[in-house]
Amino acid sequence: MEFDLIELIRRRTAQPRDDVRLGIGDDAAVLAMPAGQELAVAIDTLVEGVHFPCGTAAADIGWKALAVNLSDLAAMGASPAWALLALTLPAADAAFVEGFADGFAQLAQPHRLALVGGDTTRGPLCISVAVHGFVPPAKALTRAGARVGDAVLVTGTLGDAAAGLHALQHPWRDDDPRSNLREFLIERLNRPVPRLAAGAALRGQASACADISDGLLADLGHICTASGVGAEIEAVLLPRSSALLDLHDDATALHFALSGGDDYELCFTVPAQRLADVQADLSRLGCGVTRIGRIVDGSGVRVRGSDGDWLNMDRSGWEHFA
Amino acid sequence: MEFDLIELIRRRTAQPRDDVRLGIGDDAAVLAMPAGQELAVAIDTLVEGVHFPCGTAAADIGWKALAVNLSDLAAMGASPAWALLALTLPAADAAFVEGFADGFAQLAQPHRLALVGGDTTRGPLCISVAVHGFVPPAKALTRAGARVGDAVLVTGTLGDAAAGLHALQHPWRDDDPRSNLREFLIERLNRPVPRLAAGAALRGQASACADISDGLLADLGHICTASGVGAEIEAVLLPRSSALLDLHDDATALHFALSGGDDYELCFTVPAQRLADVQADLSRLGCGVTRIGRIVDGSGVRVRGSDGDWLNMDRSGWEHFA
Repeated sequence: MEFDLIELIRRRTAQPRDDVRLGIGDDAAVLAMPAGQELAVAIDTLVEGVHFPCGTAAADIGWKALAVNLSDLAAMGASPAWALLALTLPAADAAFVEGFADGFAQLAQPHRLALVGGDTTRGPLCISVAVHGFVPPAKALTRAGARVGDAVLVTGTLGDAAAGLHALQHPWRDDDPRSNLREFLIERLNRPVPRLAAGAALRGQASACADISDGLLADLGHICTASGVGAEIEAVLLPRSSALLDLHDDATALHFALSGGDDYELCFTVPAQRLADVQADLSRLGCGVTRIGRIVDGSGVRVRGSDGDWLNMDRSGWEHFA
Repeated sequence: MEFDLIELIRRRTAQPRDDVRLGIGDDAAVLAMPAGQELAVAIDTLVEGVHFPCGTAAADIGWKALAVNLSDLAAMGASPAWALLALTLPAADAAFVEGFADGFAQLAQPHRLALVGGDTTRGPLCISVAVHGFVPPAKALTRAGARVGDAVLVTGTLGDAAAGLHALQHPWRDDDPRSNLREFLIERLNRPVPRLAAGAALRGQASACADISDGLLADLGHICTASGVGAEIEAVLLPRSSALLDLHDDATALHFALSGGDDYELCFTVPAQRLADVQADLSRLGCGVTRIGRIVDGSGVRVRGSDGDWLNMDRSGWEHFA
């Protein structure tokens, strides 16, 4: 049955690419690298009950398993090409696999990403996806290039996914007039859209970049650590959706925006002289972009509240083993 | 804590390679492909209680998680270069991670394989490794090239890993004079040695190749299906270790050799005119090699018993969802 599951996934994710010399069905896939490119590779795992709530729709899981990995490529400024899938399932559940493959394919197709190999095994529900993308030599965005004086920016809005998880954990009545807001937030949790076009546009422009998977404070903290700098953020500048602000008081919305995981927006730094150009470039792509603070001497991330005082907080984003 | 685990693994698996432009510690690794090579990629998962018994030593799990993947590269004739690790653990257990990383590194180091990225998550013990290797253009071994009249060969001995699992499931007394035989078989289960040198030597020589992960009948069956041929195997020719034959009656030893999983030997086919050269080449590498049968018209795998009659068997190797 293992092989039937792989074949089922293969059929639903078929994506012809000339550079796939040998795809699913042998001991390994064989791929041709384009000349003059480097290979960006990442792997991320989703575990039921940890990275998505039990009961999440199979198609949402399939989408998200790929999205969180494509978000890593976006953060490097890489263009996606190929993926491997390691799918561990409690039982050979064809309906689950069909839904999973459909969600995966919905995200893969517009990016012409080909699923080239995989492994299905029996065990507690757990999905690892490895993705491969191309980036011009020495042009990959990293976490390490932020300099004092650079502006700190983020794409999109922050805190929506955390508010989506909150909504799932606090069911509401069907006739609640704000159902649509909750559904928007749950969609943000279950169907994150990796910022691939924005990441590619930031190559050669941003001095450092990371995706926001563990929360803004944690991921901006990674940029600060890797770059040997600190950052100062203005709470009033944090972009928050009207759904988030309508459903939560200001303190909760701020908490979600600073520490909520799973947003998969990009956080990046830009030298002052390029700021206007970068903002214009991303806006042309239809990607919301907001300056939220600046890089400073020192270490760590500080947040100034709307009253002008620094917020008192010891610890940052969500860590799985925290 | 997630980041400390990755750092711990990084330190214990450090492997300098010029082609790793950016290793563990950013959103993705960045790698430089050598010119004139294709990329072979595979992913395999080990789940506790399915792919290794509960209580297996961490170092053995680390070794095996890499070995089963390198075996896929061996089956393609590819040379290993880079790996990604997705490690899901019930708790942040530094002792386990240290042991795991040591076992992983013991196998990685002689092959100059670099761990370039990973993800550690909380959940039931489950390990996915993705490996990347190089193979000259259009030279990858596949399952699809076997032709009628080709000889069928295997490396090493078959059935040891299944007998090792049997030994673990049937504990013996410390003063049993055959303890060393059981330990040999358990070592074969826990520390499979991927046949990388043999696989590389078979490029341009073998007409088809697969590694024996699911058992000889299943994996040779994959070659037959992919090649559109059948195979006939002689039971008396199957290479079996003296440990296997000393501890088990002939019927059990045959069953393990035909259907036992986890041997990670190579099964391959060779045109008759190249047979002697291939056997000599592999012997020079110190790799045992045995002709066990031939490719015939038709489909499926038949086995002739020592009495000259075909064995009666409906179904083949071990499948996880069988």
